[in-house]
Amino acid sequence: MIVIVREGVAPDKLDELCGYLRSQNVEPHVVVGEKRTVVGLIGDTTCIDVHRLESMDQVASVRRVSEPFKKAGRQFHPDDTVVEAGGAVFGGGHFGVMAGPCAVESEEQCMAVAAAVKKAGATVFRGGAFKPRTSPYAFQGMGEEGLAILSKVKREFGMPVVSEVMDARDLPLFDDVDILQVGARNMQNYSLLKELGKTDKPILLKRGLAATIEELLMAAEYIMAGGNERVMLCERGTRSYDTRTRNAFDVSAIPVLRGLTHLPIIADPSHATGRARLVPPAAYAAVAAGADGLEVEVHCDPAHAASDGVQALLPAQFDEMMRRASLVRAAVADPLAVL
Amino acid sequence: MIVIVREGVAPDKLDELCGYLRSQNVEPHVVVGEKRTVVGLIGDTTCIDVHRLESMDQVASVRRVSEPFKKAGRQFHPDDTVVEAGGAVFGGGHFGVMAGPCAVESEEQCMAVAAAVKKAGATVFRGGAFKPRTSPYAFQGMGEEGLAILSKVKREFGMPVVSEVMDARDLPLFDDVDILQVGARNMQNYSLLKELGKTDKPILLKRGLAATIEELLMAAEYIMAGGNERVMLCERGTRSYDTRTRNAFDVSAIPVLRGLTHLPIIADPSHATGRARLVPPAAYAAVAAGADGLEVEVHCDPAHAASDGVQALLPAQFDEMMRRASLVRAAVADPLAVL
Amino acid sequence: MIVIVREGVAPDKLDELCGYLRSQNVEPHVVVGEKRTVVGLIGDTTCIDVHRLESMDQVASVRRVSEPFKKAGRQFHPDDTVVEAGGAVFGGGHFGVMAGPCAVESEEQCMAVAAAVKKAGATVFRGGAFKPRTSPYAFQGMGEEGLAILSKVKREFGMPVVSEVMDARDLPLFDDVDILQVGARNMQNYSLLKELGKTDKPILLKRGLAATIEELLMAAEYIMAGGNERVMLCERGTRSYDTRTRNAFDVSAIPVLRGLTHLPIIADPSHATGRARLVPPAAYAAVAAGADGLEVEVHCDPAHAASDGVQALLPAQFDEMMRRASLVRAAVADPLAVL
Amino acid sequence: MIVIVREGVAPDKLDELCGYLRSQNVEPHVVVGEKRTVVGLIGDTTCIDVHRLESMDQVASVRRVSEPFKKAGRQFHPDDTVVEAGGAVFGGGHFGVMAGPCAVESEEQCMAVAAAVKKAGATVFRGGAFKPRTSPYAFQGMGEEGLAILSKVKREFGMPVVSEVMDARDLPLFDDVDILQVGARNMQNYSLLKELGKTDKPILLKRGLAATIEELLMAAEYIMAGGNERVMLCERGTRSYDTRTRNAFDVSAIPVLRGLTHLPIIADPSHATGRARLVPPAAYAAVAAGADGLEVEVHCDPAHAASDGVQALLPAQFDEMMRRASLVRAAVADPLAVL
Repeated sequence: MIVIVREGVAPDKLDELCGYLRSQNVEPHVVVGEKRTVVGLIGDTTCIDVHRLESMDQVASVRRVSEPFKKAGRQFHPDDTVVEAGGAVFGGGHFGVMAGPCAVESEEQCMAVAAAVKKAGATVFRGGAFKPRTSPYAFQGMGEEGLAILSKVKREFGMPVVSEVMDARDLPLFDDVDILQVGARNMQNYSLLKELGKTDKPILLKRGLAATIEELLMAAEYIMAGGNERVMLCERGTRSYDTRTRNAFDVSAIPVLRGLTHLPIIADPSHATGRARLVPPAAYAAVAAGADGLEVEVHCDPAHAASDGVQALLPAQFDEMMRRASLVRAAVADPLAVL
Repeated sequence: MIVIVREGVAPDKLDELCGYLRSQNVEPHVVVGEKRTVVGLIGDTTCIDVHRLESMDQVASVRRVSEPFKKAGRQFHPDDTVVEAGGAVFGGGHFGVMAGPCAVESEEQCMAVAAAVKKAGATVFRGGAFKPRTSPYAFQGMGEEGLAILSKVKREFGMPVVSEVMDARDLPLFDDVDILQVGARNMQNYSLLKELGKTDKPILLKRGLAATIEELLMAAEYIMAGGNERVMLCERGTRSYDTRTRNAFDVSAIPVLRGLTHLPIIADPSHATGRARLVPPAAYAAVAAGADGLEVEVHCDPAHAASDGVQALLPAQFDEMMRRASLVRAAVADPLAVL
Repeated sequence: MIVIVREGVAPDKLDELCGYLRSQNVEPHVVVGEKRTVVGLIGDTTCIDVHRLESMDQVASVRRVSEPFKKAGRQFHPDDTVVEAGGAVFGGGHFGVMAGPCAVESEEQCMAVAAAVKKAGATVFRGGAFKPRTSPYAFQGMGEEGLAILSKVKREFGMPVVSEVMDARDLPLFDDVDILQVGARNMQNYSLLKELGKTDKPILLKRGLAATIEELLMAAEYIMAGGNERVMLCERGTRSYDTRTRNAFDVSAIPVLRGLTHLPIIADPSHATGRARLVPPAAYAAVAAGADGLEVEVHCDPAHAASDGVQALLPAQFDEMMRRASLVRAAVADPLAVL
Repeated sequence: MIVIVREGVAPDKLDELCGYLRSQNVEPHVVVGEKRTVVGLIGDTTCIDVHRLESMDQVASVRRVSEPFKKAGRQFHPDDTVVEAGGAVFGGGHFGVMAGPCAVESEEQCMAVAAAVKKAGATVFRGGAFKPRTSPYAFQGMGEEGLAILSKVKREFGMPVVSEVMDARDLPLFDDVDILQVGARNMQNYSLLKELGKTDKPILLKRGLAATIEELLMAAEYIMAGGNERVMLCERGTRSYDTRTRNAFDVSAIPVLRGLTHLPIIADPSHATGRARLVPPAAYAAVAAGADGLEVEVHCDPAHAASDGVQALLPAQFDEMMRRASLVRAAVADPLAVL
């Protein structure tokens, strides 16, 4: 950590600052430049209160040198984390695809979609039972009944299932769900994250609508600090000023995350783009950029989907997407070895 | 609602679309242009599923003409809503100021700040007992003990209090709190919003970090749809690409909201700017733009605040701010009458 | 074009509006809904002044149904445009790669890089002679001397060259340059765009730092309206709120542009990411999303580059990138045929 | 400047880095922390090439401690700059208002508007002769003829005039214009900025559509580095993700700029908001936040304006705005003295 000292601070005030820093168990190292003086801190700075430091009279600004995320960071955990859930494996060279409808609508719907996506190679079945909808008047999901349908799919097809949990009080209902999804709108619902830290299930943590990469990693840190280290991060596009796209799907975030964290990185091209026509190119791009997995919405009858039908792929489109995505993955395999 | 038809749709497919629309109890009105055909819908379109419509083959896009927010919108509720809480009044020409420390740290701290802000004219005491912090390793608030301190302040100074609730399960602890605050990170925590809709306390709903104005109003709609119509909206800056400011504090959102909604509009210049030096100008600007109230962080010893001390005003600074803000308010009073 | 009428407009005022519209040679078609009245316009609306219409008392808002870009739009020009420059071909199934140093620094530097990139398969040599730098104190490029070096490279290696033009007054110096590049900062320098519309050289038009897709297409329209229809669009990342990435590199913009325009779409992963380590994954992603070409910075000694060395690939890295990008391209070839 | 060293760099590589730094005439000062090593640079670092440094193997990142803007920065020029133009004065406690139509349309129009705005207290007449329009098919301004009309206004009313210059080649036509405006789209048109640096006229430099505060100051630096130090900065709103506002009008940028620069800070509430109804509240907010002046669009017949009529105030509205703005200014006068 580096403390940049205000101009014109008197020597005794600088000594006072150094005394405070020593009281925090770090050793200040003063560097007097021609125009600015800076103080480098040697020791464990995780206990330093940056805000308090910044509000001191002597201090112009404070800059961190090491990262605020510990358990999620690659610095102390250089090897990739591999997350396994009901046979599906993500990270550390393993690739998986979660596919299914946006919302669970009926047993028939789910069975039909599950048969199609399993055949095409999906490794996890997705389906929302509790739906976070922008409008209180929109379909809010089938709830517990939807989770029961997911259990049937799981047994029928031998596929693990992933579903979104919106409220810590609902957790007992998710016993049979293999991967718990945290939606973008709840990425900083710290009460929920803390509860998920106490569970032993893999978490699929979606990046908030306009969350920074650091905030995403700090949200993962909340879960991991609670004891659950099986977290997967999910890029799903971020807020953009452009009205011709639904979100900005910044694929450069994937290799940036790869450098910062050991956790698996999943991409959701369906929510990223919001239009079926755009889903396959976005999926290929995510895989090309190094994603460890995809989450894709598939529906047998998108025109009659209860939510987000406009972005669902038909089974035939999904099948095509899977085949091409596999070729793209082969093309970029092991990219870090050379570069 | 207007449906823009894809180019080249055959007459029978257009008829099919119109048939579907009639089945939804709206009357389609086809307008054939030189290049594009559009269908205007007459009737109650609130039940129309826009996503389903958009995913139909015949449809290029769908545009809403009326607003998706009903109870929060000014259209069906032209008069300003006045929210009263423990004697403080906001909206409809009433102005109030909520002031106090970011976090409740001790009884002494709160009593000292409360005495100062009450003297300067604040009408509500603020203090966080449950703190949403980006890092799981940062101070998370005093919790229930903090709420007990707020109760003492309330009795001692006869001031209503506002405090943030992060988890629906904590609601029973907030019995003695006058205004329930929803933090920016929880603006779309729909489970929490639904629970707040069942309470009878005023809600201070903070705009999400990068929420649109429409999303803010839809979050209010969630609370109101549950039966609680005493919602105040709070502007606190939104995510910006600039690193020299903490947030973009877009004051034009205040008169835009004024046109769209009857709910009181509060501004939080402390979180908007993040620096004590910037708080007064931002406060004056918010008042000048027409805000119905302010929420401001005040601390007697910002350098030792447990959180966000760098943005807290000293009592003397707050007193100065209150006097000038009052002059600004007088300068712009009743602005809509003339313009 | 659809005109949404304000609530409560009297019939005679509505007639007045319709009269004005007829005077603009379009036929108004009034649709009276339960809550709102809209007027659909039939005829050629390109001459309608939307701003004037919006400022009329009767009008709540105006929504365009057809696109504001004509020559750049796919609507009136369904087939892909193929741009050829000195033997390199882009668009309509043709793929090309422009590679070379950010700035021309010396003949030796350019010859070495050109030999390497040609061998790896690049089809155009890039090099900046006039450099738009954020600071007036930074290296501004070699200017005319730099262009002379590009001419030598062109003759020596038989490769066409691309270089940025910043000022219409410099155009006579660019006689021997094959493709004129417009930098992101000049995307809306309309004086320059108009001059380029009078030339007969292909233009590589970079998307502005925070330009919308529509603004990019309107900038292309400026050039095309002047008579030069050989325009290539270049995605190079847009402004983001995140500080961990240089830009947001939204690959979904590539298929969105593909739907809107017939012009070739190039991607610049070097400026999009700003770090050599991130360039190959971003390049693969752009190709996977359907780009018609790449522009990549390559340098034999990035640590001593005069500008932007941190994002330049070494020749060996570029060679590897070319081989993998070619496999990615094969994997996604002809994606529109099926989906 | 602080260089953060990569982890695990061997001592001889660190020595090599220090040797390079000494060759650049700065003295490296190594601070070895528990986890990271940093090198503080003592001496004049303006000549250091940050990009080159960042691309060296030993370097993780580089952080500037002092500002990149010199002439525009307050650090070396603590007193406010006062800009005078034809009797109007801005900055250092002086406040002025530039008002007039978006575009010069006719002599009658300009004379009528000029009479009205002068009476209401405007100190400069504004009018565009060369208009940067998003569409090449929109009205591009009256050009030279428009400038001749501005000259007549200037003589008739004894008011200085401000008008936008889009092309350095047009500069000879602007002899009689008192203040040269650089539009948002040209803020980083460095060729134009360099030419303006050679003139002796005050420059009104508009912030780019999504320019950072630092980029705005660096654009001013371009003009000032050329010898022209009479630059005024103009906030006009920046790109936002929200579709309910035209721009984000972040007033906190005004006090932030005040801290960084000595140049006058003007606000343009017309372009910031794009709607006449929103202009007065935005103007009051800008004044409340400490702006040194305003630029406002006024038109006697907005419904028939040739461009941007929807945001123009009527003379009576402008008069009201001027009176209230003056009261707001009095309320916040001398804000830095106390806080």
